[in-house]
Amino acid sequence: MGEYGTPNIDIEEGYITITHNGRTDTLPYPKQASSFYHLSKVHDSNNIAFTCKAWGIRATDLNQGVVYGVRTDETEMHEELYNRFDYDGIFGTALNRFCVQAAVGHPLTVYGKGGQTRGYLDIRDTVQCVELAIANPAQRGEFRVFNQFTEQFSVNELAKLVTKAGEKLGLDVQTISVPNPRVEAEEHYYNAKHTKLIELGLKPHLLSDSLLDSLLNVAIEFKDRVDTKQIMPNVSWRKIGVKPKTVAA
Amino acid sequence: MGEYGTPNIDIEEGYITITHNGRTDTLPYPKQASSFYHLSKVHDSNNIAFTCKAWGIRATDLNQGVVYGVRTDETEMHEELYNRFDYDGIFGTALNRFCVQAAVGHPLTVYGKGGQTRGYLDIRDTVQCVELAIANPAQRGEFRVFNQFTEQFSVNELAKLVTKAGEKLGLDVQTISVPNPRVEAEEHYYNAKHTKLIELGLKPHLLSDSLLDSLLNVAIEFKDRVDTKQIMPNVSWRKIGVKPKTVAA
Repeated sequence: MGEYGTPNIDIEEGYITITHNGRTDTLPYPKQASSFYHLSKVHDSNNIAFTCKAWGIRATDLNQGVVYGVRTDETEMHEELYNRFDYDGIFGTALNRFCVQAAVGHPLTVYGKGGQTRGYLDIRDTVQCVELAIANPAQRGEFRVFNQFTEQFSVNELAKLVTKAGEKLGLDVQTISVPNPRVEAEEHYYNAKHTKLIELGLKPHLLSDSLLDSLLNVAIEFKDRVDTKQIMPNVSWRKIGVKPKTVAA
Repeated sequence: MGEYGTPNIDIEEGYITITHNGRTDTLPYPKQASSFYHLSKVHDSNNIAFTCKAWGIRATDLNQGVVYGVRTDETEMHEELYNRFDYDGIFGTALNRFCVQAAVGHPLTVYGKGGQTRGYLDIRDTVQCVELAIANPAQRGEFRVFNQFTEQFSVNELAKLVTKAGEKLGLDVQTISVPNPRVEAEEHYYNAKHTKLIELGLKPHLLSDSLLDSLLNVAIEFKDRVDTKQIMPNVSWRKIGVKPKTVAA
């Protein structure tokens, strides 16, 4: 979903019908990536769209939101199947990071004003969406785009949810605002469509108290493995030439 | 200009204001590149737009149309300063190719129906536009897009102009339709804006009889250097795995 940026109009699934000077066309939805990571996805989308047109390839572009959670039915079968759980400033995603921060007693790190709103989904829904896309392939020559998320949250909303869930487990959860290392709007309109995967049969696992409890409990269970030096963001998009800090061994 | 493709609405200069579900925003104009050559430019534009936002870089993205002509005031000062004149299916551009074809007695090669319409400009205006963009830089953090062409023509219109100009010089100019090696619309709406460079002071050299005469005369003067095996297109976007024919030395 980071391909879209935060336009001041509704985000559609890949295409938008535009009426302009009395004529109408349905065109690729304008992309406004805000990192080279997201730009690389924009480039992929543009390249693949062309190959569909030129050579009749079938493609489904899953524009995925921010994933949270760590367990699926399969990984839960044995501890050795547990997945990685990223909590650092580069690979960690907002909700997962907040759970680890709450577990180790670190204040939740809200970047800037915290009004940044994005689409989120449970890791179990990620797997379900990929399965649905494969089971229901695109038409020949079709470049199909699905917005793959189930709910929208702002960073401040997530911080509040984790604070409340932490209190129930006896944790004293604080929140701090840290200077935003990214270049992004911190207060903005956000309304992204996400109906196509639902139409194919996606049954969302919405964010619930029990999921939050279980995420926090995973973080608490393994909190001795957390390297707290990885918690604060140490790559800044704002300052040219700032390099990730290397931690002495 | 190939970044834009051939949308069914007017092409603006880099950005379009869209009203959608009651809200309005000005967003990057949707791009629909129809070759990897044009895709590489789309990627450049997206990357540079991000760097302007993130680091306040000033950038002007010159979305140039199809260039014709070969001489500028400077290269005309001595024969050894003459520029290259591409007439092959890869580097050659429509009007220049037609002039060489007319000069050597090869039928003009119209791809498919010939309704393909694009923005064109004289090579002298290319130089003028680059100079104007440098002399009038973008604001700090601005990603500015100029559509750099002066007139629109369809391929059929160009073939007619060259036929007429050739007749005046005593050439018998024929036209053939060859299977289109590209994947592109052969009949389509096309109306692209190009006012920003004019506002900065561009004085266009529009396509005139005298320019066509001079182009044809250059082609006739050097026609003994033409390798006629390079005239027909030999790279097809339609067939996967078709490679350019190599010509035995």
